[in-house]
Amino acid sequence: MRKGMLITFEGGEGCGKSTHIKLLAKYLRSKMKKVLLTLEPGGTPFGKGLRKILLNDRTVSPLAELLLFAADRAQHVEKIIKPALKKGYIVLCDRYFDSTMAYQINGRKLSAGLVKLLVEISSHDLDPDLTLLLDINVKDGLKRAEVRTKFEKEKLAFHKRVRKGFLEIAAKNKRRVVLIDSTKSISDVQKEIREICKAKIFGKRS
Amino acid sequence: MRKGMLITFEGGEGCGKSTHIKLLAKYLRSKMKKVLLTLEPGGTPFGKGLRKILLNDRTVSPLAELLLFAADRAQHVEKIIKPALKKGYIVLCDRYFDSTMAYQINGRKLSAGLVKLLVEISSHDLDPDLTLLLDINVKDGLKRAEVRTKFEKEKLAFHKRVRKGFLEIAAKNKRRVVLIDSTKSISDVQKEIREICKAKIFGKRS
Repeated sequence: MRKGMLITFEGGEGCGKSTHIKLLAKYLRSKMKKVLLTLEPGGTPFGKGLRKILLNDRTVSPLAELLLFAADRAQHVEKIIKPALKKGYIVLCDRYFDSTMAYQINGRKLSAGLVKLLVEISSHDLDPDLTLLLDINVKDGLKRAEVRTKFEKEKLAFHKRVRKGFLEIAAKNKRRVVLIDSTKSISDVQKEIREICKAKIFGKRS
Repeated sequence: MRKGMLITFEGGEGCGKSTHIKLLAKYLRSKMKKVLLTLEPGGTPFGKGLRKILLNDRTVSPLAELLLFAADRAQHVEKIIKPALKKGYIVLCDRYFDSTMAYQINGRKLSAGLVKLLVEISSHDLDPDLTLLLDINVKDGLKRAEVRTKFEKEKLAFHKRVRKGFLEIAAKNKRRVVLIDSTKSISDVQKEIREICKAKIFGKRS
């Protein structure tokens, strides 16, 4: 029986995910919650090797890339996320399958059916309880992000397609995905995130 | 249009694949044939990183392993094998999808439907023209193989299941797969391999 809760953070480059997920973890721990902070790709020792290849190898084909993300997720869900949920942890995950959908379908233009199939296989049918989509326009996001990985070096049109993909996911999954305007100040955005998570975790807004 | 020919070598640990594929390449080159000698996993620069992880990481789950082999193959077929076939090469490949079937279905006991699905996706529907299955009983094979990778360290029962898997593949694919008794001397086995390949490539035996 699943006792914990899976909260995923999604969004394009420079949307502030990494900052906010850390701030939220700190906050929840201050409220005596058991929190596991993790990420994809690279949430397992096995996945760390894949992460390097995934974020830096520019020769990889879109299909091989999709399969590699799937391998990373399969290991991560089985070895890290599911055991933590069983132990009652609140798992905060920096990127999960919505990123695969937005980047691989919209960004890389792979077939939606194929990507969905790989998402189902690799996630062992584990859906997040809550997904926070941090939205920012592409130009501002890229300005914020340091150019580090091959994804951040992709053209503007690629990032615009990814953002469109994320917004479509939010529109289709209104119960699970909460869209957050990440152009506001860090403290305002974090305040909003905490309100949403408190309502979800403690069952009330306050 | 495909002009070349794909010949795959399959078999368990210590079956002599690596020795025979090199001898065959040398022979075919002496007959003025354009030959590409390659392998899975690790037939691309991208795949070399995966090969290390695949053959040595003992934490990886069967599903993540399957997906990683699929990623390796997707890149290999698209970037190496298909372009070489187009240029008229005879591509000799040390392991291909029959290994995935035997090791992942029989060895790891993953669902046959899932493994077949991943084989289809990752091979871009490219079947070998000819597959040489080098068969040897498990104990003799393991004696020959130096213990190097985690696969070679698997228990006897694992290797017996894999051998059974290979033999079933041969029985089901008689037009494509030729079963070769690899307990004979290297020169006898190589002679048989050359006869089979000559018949396939030059359209006649001898």
